[in-house]
Amino acid sequence: MRIQGKFYRTIWALGEAPTVHIIDQTLLPHRLEIRTLARAADAAEAIAAMRVRGAPLIGATAAYGYALGAREDPADAGLERVRDQLLSTRPTAVNLRWALDLMRAAVLPLPPAARASAAFEQAASIAEADVVSCRAIGGHGLALIEQLAARKDGAAVNVLTHCNAGWLAAVDWGTALAPVYAAHRAGIAVHVWVDETRPRNQGASLTAYELAGEGVAHTLIADNAGGHLMQQGRVDLCLVGSDRTAANGDVANKIGTYLKALAAHDNGVPFYVALPCSTLDWGLASGVGSIPIEERSAREVTHVTGLAADGTLNTVAIAPPGTAAANPAFDVTPARLVTGLITERGVAAASRGGLLHLYPEQAGTPA
Amino acid sequence: MRIQGKFYRTIWALGEAPTVHIIDQTLLPHRLEIRTLARAADAAEAIAAMRVRGAPLIGATAAYGYALGAREDPADAGLERVRDQLLSTRPTAVNLRWALDLMRAAVLPLPPAARASAAFEQAASIAEADVVSCRAIGGHGLALIEQLAARKDGAAVNVLTHCNAGWLAAVDWGTALAPVYAAHRAGIAVHVWVDETRPRNQGASLTAYELAGEGVAHTLIADNAGGHLMQQGRVDLCLVGSDRTAANGDVANKIGTYLKALAAHDNGVPFYVALPCSTLDWGLASGVGSIPIEERSAREVTHVTGLAADGTLNTVAIAPPGTAAANPAFDVTPARLVTGLITERGVAAASRGGLLHLYPEQAGTPA
Repeated sequence: MRIQGKFYRTIWALGEAPTVHIIDQTLLPHRLEIRTLARAADAAEAIAAMRVRGAPLIGATAAYGYALGAREDPADAGLERVRDQLLSTRPTAVNLRWALDLMRAAVLPLPPAARASAAFEQAASIAEADVVSCRAIGGHGLALIEQLAARKDGAAVNVLTHCNAGWLAAVDWGTALAPVYAAHRAGIAVHVWVDETRPRNQGASLTAYELAGEGVAHTLIADNAGGHLMQQGRVDLCLVGSDRTAANGDVANKIGTYLKALAAHDNGVPFYVALPCSTLDWGLASGVGSIPIEERSAREVTHVTGLAADGTLNTVAIAPPGTAAANPAFDVTPARLVTGLITERGVAAASRGGLLHLYPEQAGTPA
Repeated sequence: MRIQGKFYRTIWALGEAPTVHIIDQTLLPHRLEIRTLARAADAAEAIAAMRVRGAPLIGATAAYGYALGAREDPADAGLERVRDQLLSTRPTAVNLRWALDLMRAAVLPLPPAARASAAFEQAASIAEADVVSCRAIGGHGLALIEQLAARKDGAAVNVLTHCNAGWLAAVDWGTALAPVYAAHRAGIAVHVWVDETRPRNQGASLTAYELAGEGVAHTLIADNAGGHLMQQGRVDLCLVGSDRTAANGDVANKIGTYLKALAAHDNGVPFYVALPCSTLDWGLASGVGSIPIEERSAREVTHVTGLAADGTLNTVAIAPPGTAAANPAFDVTPARLVTGLITERGVAAASRGGLLHLYPEQAGTPA
């Protein structure tokens, strides 16, 4: 999608002996810097430091990291070490394991000399498949937005989203924002309430940034405001992404998602979760209490980084020195609060039955 | 209560021809500065700029502002002008009107020469009554905490609070935190989850600060985290304050309170609101859709002020330049989500009947 009129993806490989490039998302919206991942360790660092984030993009970056590792050392032991290193970067997004399983299956059967080039091909295929999936999610979600628009008499459809599940969270298009982009391109008036998403402010720094790049109307709000807006009838639809969705439709997503789902339920606002199949964890029967929740640094809560008046990036403390802070990065929204799951194959009820209707080939997976 | 071992109130008057002093809360937790209110206009400015905030403290400050005005110009017209000026500072807290009505009733019947000294006496009485009310709220809430502690086998009772409804929001003791201080002094182990309370971060800057001053264990969290903690069984009780409570028990409080009430309800966590009778608006039959909600500056959402590493206060932007933001400062929690209202007269069911049981003298007030 576009940043100041120029098209980007979040990750791309260039050349015969490919170099891998990412947008360093820790510097957005203040600086647009492209970073090169030269080695597997660079990919692991980029995921752990959240230079790339978002479940689909974490998967694609892990795939390229594995390919970089295959070029460094194509032996079985080296590849397993790289896999372990990449797998340990973040615990919640299941796309990481999914992508590494695909890489391993494509690469390990080959003779070592053939592995690196096959690995880059497979990584490119994973990235390309994500773009196709997200575009399809956009199409299925567009139908929902069209239905809402038909009742609005030309007024904008108000979509509330949490965190960033836009193109910056995927390779392109995004998950939750793909339907918004599809609607915007179809000429439907759409306006997005952007939760700022403390403590890392992905809404303020990434979602507002990418919506501005595509010219989609949006308003930033504190995470606290969404319930009030829904109570006042100012939200037509909630659309969020997911980091892992269990086989029963329980949804792990950025901390605070559960609160918005409760408010949507209390006010009769449809609450949809958009996700590619790589985010489905068929091995988990349910999500509440089962999906591992990453606990991040207290400093993300007690300090805020932003652009000072003099144009420098500055970090300020908002709490008294020594204040203890807890920082769970995700929560789990029970399936009963989810109106539907928008996948690349269509919209499913948030239940095992609903998901199996779209993914019948998973019927035999033990959960 | 204590700041670094020294006792303070949030507002106090000194001397025969009194000077009025406040803690400038816009500088907390980074600087402790006492500010003198010399004229009525200073009091109005202090309320509007949120140097003082919290419904009970807004009432007390307005009372002292009226007294300062009576000294400047004791004529009827001057006093009405001062009343209007003070009343226009903030729209949501009903304590403002309540205090000014008391001041007017005590002062206007007197001859002009007697008005200023009577006004200072009445303001001191309002402030003192607030301390007595808050201490009583602490006693009634203590009984609730004792019941919870009896089931915890010595483990700390975990209280989640939103915004600051501690002693910094009142004259002393506070509303929601008065029971916490009472429990702490009674030797009950208590731990407070402190919502940071975006966009103005009153939890991080005021609640964490005042709990530290009294030595009460606490952990700062993003506003997004409370639902997850309740789902995990890590919250025993939610305790919040109120800026205005309607006659049916609907509660206006800091934006985001409604989301926590929904999560408490979904997880069977008791959700109590602590308030003195000055916060009850008997003239409002219900609160949802009726209580005026202050809309504040977008800059409070797009910018954050804190302490930089060099010890200076610095303001940083967290969103792209030009990002639109909405900033409703309060929301209304429907009475059906409120377990009980803790007032200076005891704990009431959140309903007209429950409130009238404690305040039978209001039975005739038309709502």
